[in-house]
Amino acid sequence: MSFPHGLGFEPDLSDPYLARAAALREIFARDAVERDKAGGRPAEQILLLKESGLLKLLIPREHGGHGEPWSTALRIVREFAKVDGSLGHLYGYHFGSVHAAHLLGDPDQAAALYRRSAEGNWFWGNARNSFSKTLSGRREGDWITVNGFKPFTSGSHVADALMIAWLDEETHDWAFAAVPADRPGIIVENDWDAIGQRQTGSGRVTFADLKIHADEVLDHGFDRGRPYRTLGVLQQQSVLLNVFVGSAQGALAAARDYTVTTSRPWLHSGVETHTDDPWVQRTYGDLVLRTQAATLLADRALAAIDAAFARGRDLTEAERGEAAVTVAAANAHAGAVALDVTSTVFEVMGARASASAYGFDRFWRNVRTHTLHNPAEYKIRNVGTWFLTGAYPQPSNFQ
Amino acid sequence: MSFPHGLGFEPDLSDPYLARAAALREIFARDAVERDKAGGRPAEQILLLKESGLLKLLIPREHGGHGEPWSTALRIVREFAKVDGSLGHLYGYHFGSVHAAHLLGDPDQAAALYRRSAEGNWFWGNARNSFSKTLSGRREGDWITVNGFKPFTSGSHVADALMIAWLDEETHDWAFAAVPADRPGIIVENDWDAIGQRQTGSGRVTFADLKIHADEVLDHGFDRGRPYRTLGVLQQQSVLLNVFVGSAQGALAAARDYTVTTSRPWLHSGVETHTDDPWVQRTYGDLVLRTQAATLLADRALAAIDAAFARGRDLTEAERGEAAVTVAAANAHAGAVALDVTSTVFEVMGARASASAYGFDRFWRNVRTHTLHNPAEYKIRNVGTWFLTGAYPQPSNFQ
Amino acid sequence: MSFPHGLGFEPDLSDPYLARAAALREIFARDAVERDKAGGRPAEQILLLKESGLLKLLIPREHGGHGEPWSTALRIVREFAKVDGSLGHLYGYHFGSVHAAHLLGDPDQAAALYRRSAEGNWFWGNARNSFSKTLSGRREGDWITVNGFKPFTSGSHVADALMIAWLDEETHDWAFAAVPADRPGIIVENDWDAIGQRQTGSGRVTFADLKIHADEVLDHGFDRGRPYRTLGVLQQQSVLLNVFVGSAQGALAAARDYTVTTSRPWLHSGVETHTDDPWVQRTYGDLVLRTQAATLLADRALAAIDAAFARGRDLTEAERGEAAVTVAAANAHAGAVALDVTSTVFEVMGARASASAYGFDRFWRNVRTHTLHNPAEYKIRNVGTWFLTGAYPQPSNFQ
Amino acid sequence: MSFPHGLGFEPDLSDPYLARAAALREIFARDAVERDKAGGRPAEQILLLKESGLLKLLIPREHGGHGEPWSTALRIVREFAKVDGSLGHLYGYHFGSVHAAHLLGDPDQAAALYRRSAEGNWFWGNARNSFSKTLSGRREGDWITVNGFKPFTSGSHVADALMIAWLDEETHDWAFAAVPADRPGIIVENDWDAIGQRQTGSGRVTFADLKIHADEVLDHGFDRGRPYRTLGVLQQQSVLLNVFVGSAQGALAAARDYTVTTSRPWLHSGVETHTDDPWVQRTYGDLVLRTQAATLLADRALAAIDAAFARGRDLTEAERGEAAVTVAAANAHAGAVALDVTSTVFEVMGARASASAYGFDRFWRNVRTHTLHNPAEYKIRNVGTWFLTGAYPQPSNFQ
Repeated sequence: MSFPHGLGFEPDLSDPYLARAAALREIFARDAVERDKAGGRPAEQILLLKESGLLKLLIPREHGGHGEPWSTALRIVREFAKVDGSLGHLYGYHFGSVHAAHLLGDPDQAAALYRRSAEGNWFWGNARNSFSKTLSGRREGDWITVNGFKPFTSGSHVADALMIAWLDEETHDWAFAAVPADRPGIIVENDWDAIGQRQTGSGRVTFADLKIHADEVLDHGFDRGRPYRTLGVLQQQSVLLNVFVGSAQGALAAARDYTVTTSRPWLHSGVETHTDDPWVQRTYGDLVLRTQAATLLADRALAAIDAAFARGRDLTEAERGEAAVTVAAANAHAGAVALDVTSTVFEVMGARASASAYGFDRFWRNVRTHTLHNPAEYKIRNVGTWFLTGAYPQPSNFQ
Repeated sequence: MSFPHGLGFEPDLSDPYLARAAALREIFARDAVERDKAGGRPAEQILLLKESGLLKLLIPREHGGHGEPWSTALRIVREFAKVDGSLGHLYGYHFGSVHAAHLLGDPDQAAALYRRSAEGNWFWGNARNSFSKTLSGRREGDWITVNGFKPFTSGSHVADALMIAWLDEETHDWAFAAVPADRPGIIVENDWDAIGQRQTGSGRVTFADLKIHADEVLDHGFDRGRPYRTLGVLQQQSVLLNVFVGSAQGALAAARDYTVTTSRPWLHSGVETHTDDPWVQRTYGDLVLRTQAATLLADRALAAIDAAFARGRDLTEAERGEAAVTVAAANAHAGAVALDVTSTVFEVMGARASASAYGFDRFWRNVRTHTLHNPAEYKIRNVGTWFLTGAYPQPSNFQ
Repeated sequence: MSFPHGLGFEPDLSDPYLARAAALREIFARDAVERDKAGGRPAEQILLLKESGLLKLLIPREHGGHGEPWSTALRIVREFAKVDGSLGHLYGYHFGSVHAAHLLGDPDQAAALYRRSAEGNWFWGNARNSFSKTLSGRREGDWITVNGFKPFTSGSHVADALMIAWLDEETHDWAFAAVPADRPGIIVENDWDAIGQRQTGSGRVTFADLKIHADEVLDHGFDRGRPYRTLGVLQQQSVLLNVFVGSAQGALAAARDYTVTTSRPWLHSGVETHTDDPWVQRTYGDLVLRTQAATLLADRALAAIDAAFARGRDLTEAERGEAAVTVAAANAHAGAVALDVTSTVFEVMGARASASAYGFDRFWRNVRTHTLHNPAEYKIRNVGTWFLTGAYPQPSNFQ
Repeated sequence: MSFPHGLGFEPDLSDPYLARAAALREIFARDAVERDKAGGRPAEQILLLKESGLLKLLIPREHGGHGEPWSTALRIVREFAKVDGSLGHLYGYHFGSVHAAHLLGDPDQAAALYRRSAEGNWFWGNARNSFSKTLSGRREGDWITVNGFKPFTSGSHVADALMIAWLDEETHDWAFAAVPADRPGIIVENDWDAIGQRQTGSGRVTFADLKIHADEVLDHGFDRGRPYRTLGVLQQQSVLLNVFVGSAQGALAAARDYTVTTSRPWLHSGVETHTDDPWVQRTYGDLVLRTQAATLLADRALAAIDAAFARGRDLTEAERGEAAVTVAAANAHAGAVALDVTSTVFEVMGARASASAYGFDRFWRNVRTHTLHNPAEYKIRNVGTWFLTGAYPQPSNFQ
């Protein structure tokens, strides 16, 4: 996949991690259409990710990782999403779980989990969906017994470890822990069957008398109330927005290749090649420049995320608030542009581009599915409120 | 499926044909999602259509049909498309073939084909795509031998009869004939596999030494040059636009039912039911009123079509031109609105609505596929040119 | 001003009132640009309206008027707005006041005011804005003394009679009366200076010890609670929407004439005349077809208004509600389309069309000003709520 | 004028030139509305610019200027346009003329003109419009006599010097010269009266036997064919786009201040302050985030302009082409966003914001006028063509 120089859609290949990601992207591209149709588990692709070392990207060097900033991981999300939204999603959410220890636990817990994750070259799945109060834990001595289920458990179907959240039966508070995915009592249903993001395994995990030791519970009382503790959601929102940006860029590249090599001029166009039609030129021009705008907003959000994480425990509410608004704006814009791009490209490819074999619709299906997880309406309101009154969004699991 | 009274989305159930169509629509709805996934042949549905008598709807009463105007057939297209775009498409194109005899042949040929179609309760498939010069016929005495293939042969997989077009090897003119679908030499590949309109069978028909008798060739020299002879394309464009309108209305109905029964209010909405959220109200309101506008333009096009056909051989170029512009405007508007509606409804249904089991994405896939068969850009240009200069679109296979 | 036949933008000139209105429109057009710049009083135009007899259009025949339905008046609003939004507005609001007697008073009051209005060939101004609680009346025996002011008193600067509303100091209820505009105590400030609708005189009227006799107070207790009593707002909303539709149509006509006669092809266009540029064709085509859609929705609203008024005292809540939703949808759509059309036409006219002498910007300024009087957002929510739940908008001064 | 920190709408006040510009902006703001109404000459404002030293901003230090890059000048254009599009335009075009010497003349001519301009603290007007072949020069010995006129001579009404272009009667080539504005034979008509950009003096200059010495003619044969010689248009396009961006930002700031201080909640909103209405929040949020995207694209264009000028005579065609596409994308996007923002803000201010006294419509009138000077359609096609085929726009006076 290539883009004109100067467009800003190409990764910086002088960065070794991005170069590795771009190489993987080309491999993922080969069977992306087939895998989209099949859904299920991208097992081979997770293996390739393990071999690449990219699963340790954000783990601090002192704990065995590469110590890269969030922006590198999110740029890799974008690369993968150019051909496969599911892998972009999985890779990005993987780090959400890896870093939950840092945000939710105490320093020793974080260090231990980083270390074990790096040593084991773990891929993490997520079972923390906070919308669903369907999982509860009962304390019995040093152990907690967890029963119920979690929906939207992205990555659980290929995970080595799961970050889970349940409601304590007694306190009605959320509790969190990281557990091996193969521990008895964890049943990964692998039942995700959605119109898009089909290999994300975002279905249900059932928990039947799962035992968690008290020491495993992330002590999220540490630094409670410090703004940095609420950064997880911004990272998650940024995974989404980079899936959107990558999907838009990828759809443009795929459509361009088809248009240039395959599309025929319209009967009444009076031009000899399809790319001479002013309509085709304008349509691509419009989609490209709006994707560029979305990309610049996304890049700005990456910088905001890095800056916020770099501030660490000293992060102020205002700094957290500004980062949240920046991410919200980028997310809403990227989603809208990606929906439009992934649908409109068909018009300048032509009727035969609707063949299932090409799988061009997977871009729209992926974006359409992924944009539903946090309505743009509320993000846009947050931006407007901040502009009007200076108020920041109240930190939550969605903003 | 029901809509608020006064919206204009409900068929006039006092019309017996529309009432029958609405009843069939409910039957088609039952397995529409499964059939969309499966693709292939809607064999049972064609049988139901035969039982209903609706396949004879437009055949003149004197030849055994119901003698209804085009608008009735196109309203039925709209009804079917509310739940199943493929069946809307097939039903509308069926009449394109039935009536090709009237537009292309001489009066005796037309009468004979009407009669045989009515008696046999035939379902017609279409193998006339004029973009493709891939089928040719060689004259040998009283017989023509036809070899090659046709793409986009909607309905061929369930057809009793096919309307076909080939290029005469000698004259390089198009020739047309109606032939039984089971005649030796016709191989229906049934190989259509697109992202939408999946049961339309719009794949390839191969012709291997198909024999056509000279008497079967539609003598389209009759009345050559009379504007009414170019009305076929307007009917075809109107099938498309009523598939768009029906899809938009159907998507709205399906989404509303889901929203009202299943959607939950957004975490930060501050409302108790999802329909109390101003965002949800506004989004539906906007989609509804634009669908209403598209419906009114479509109704205007139906009236124009009926009027043009009613003029018969006396139709003038100006009358044909005005009808063409009316249909073009309605088609372009309906396509744009339908694309937007079928994508946007997801936002106010929520994340769980992306489950494959609901099949809500079929509306977008159907419209996206179907809109590619005649670019809105050129239709809109036709409207603009006419407004600026009074010039009508040059009759062709697409306008 | 002429439009292609079949577009639906031309009035039915076989209707004598519409023919008269179209003739006046051409007269109004002559100095519409100058009058827009000057603002102030369209005194000559009101005289012409009086001469035309059109001020009596809706007054029942038995009281000296022409007994036409609302739709005729609103179509005339549309005609005038094609060249002059202010005159469209004034003409439409005139009838709002004339008919307030019917909606607010008892039958004898209504009859008397109809008769006097017809005999005097009155032009009515409006001083009823209900958003402003700035006018109050004190009962003293048989007289009420009214003091304060009213903003947004459209037509007051050229009015023979004013329909006024004030708050009773004692009961805090609204009271209404029709009074001659030259009665002592009424000071028409004629201070309206807005960016658009500049000759509507929508400024302030000050009331200084205005004396109103108790018999003049419209006894709006009559039939209180009957739905027909709340129809006034639908008529007012329909004035707005027909100003929008007329402005869009008028802007298109003016732009087309300029484009065809004056615009030059763009340097890089490669075409010989501007109308050969696909961009120009498409832009006009798109604006035309959307204006057509808005016109059809507007026509539907006219029919709904006529039907609702025709039901009279028997009008049910559901019938009133449906009419309200129909008008709301038409209003919101017309405003959006008119804003877009009146701004976008400049792009296909070119740089010289920005000369003040042409006054092409008055269309946008008029629509922009006029759309602010009742936010589309809330109308669209009303449509959405009705679609989702079947609930009608609560009758008020705005819906 | 202030914006939330982190939005990217505030100039970098640590830059002394931007700080000075921001201070001037506040002064310009005081009577911007009155001056917009009056049109004509912003004489005092030009004096303030002279006092500020900002007219020398881009003149190389060795010739008496400040040696700043183009981006600084264009950021100042943006600042001024926040309150007054005309002053933004004039300031930006001033440098177009100053630097024409560098692009059109030989090095000695450029140096001399820089020096004289710096010493004289000249303000430059432009009489080079290349669309108009209405000015011609006849060579007679060492002198050229120039007769005819030029339209669109921005800044001529307040200029010390004019950069002019005429067609040589003999060679039919364009010739260029810089002349004092008060030289006999130059009649500045000061007849600009457009709907927007009303103080730019973009009317006609008549030339009656203007004498130009052969030495004054810019010898644009020097380096003819080198890509850097065609950079002038990119600078000009960037003036336009920064006027758009500044207008959008300024309109947002003005609207917000009005909304926060003056707007009242809508009757049916159910909220206590207007800024609590989700509609108001969303509308502002949407406009803000799109203005942010436009700003980022504009910033990218500034960097491209600086980089291209910095390459100087070594600039390659590909580098010039990429800069051209970058500027084109930013220009088209900024224009579209600015048109939308400047029109839409009215909706969330309310009906009283249409009062002429506020002058809120000037933002839209300025952008609408200014966007017509180079159709976005063609810029967007250029972006699309480049994306599809890699072809750069053919350098011309518009791209």
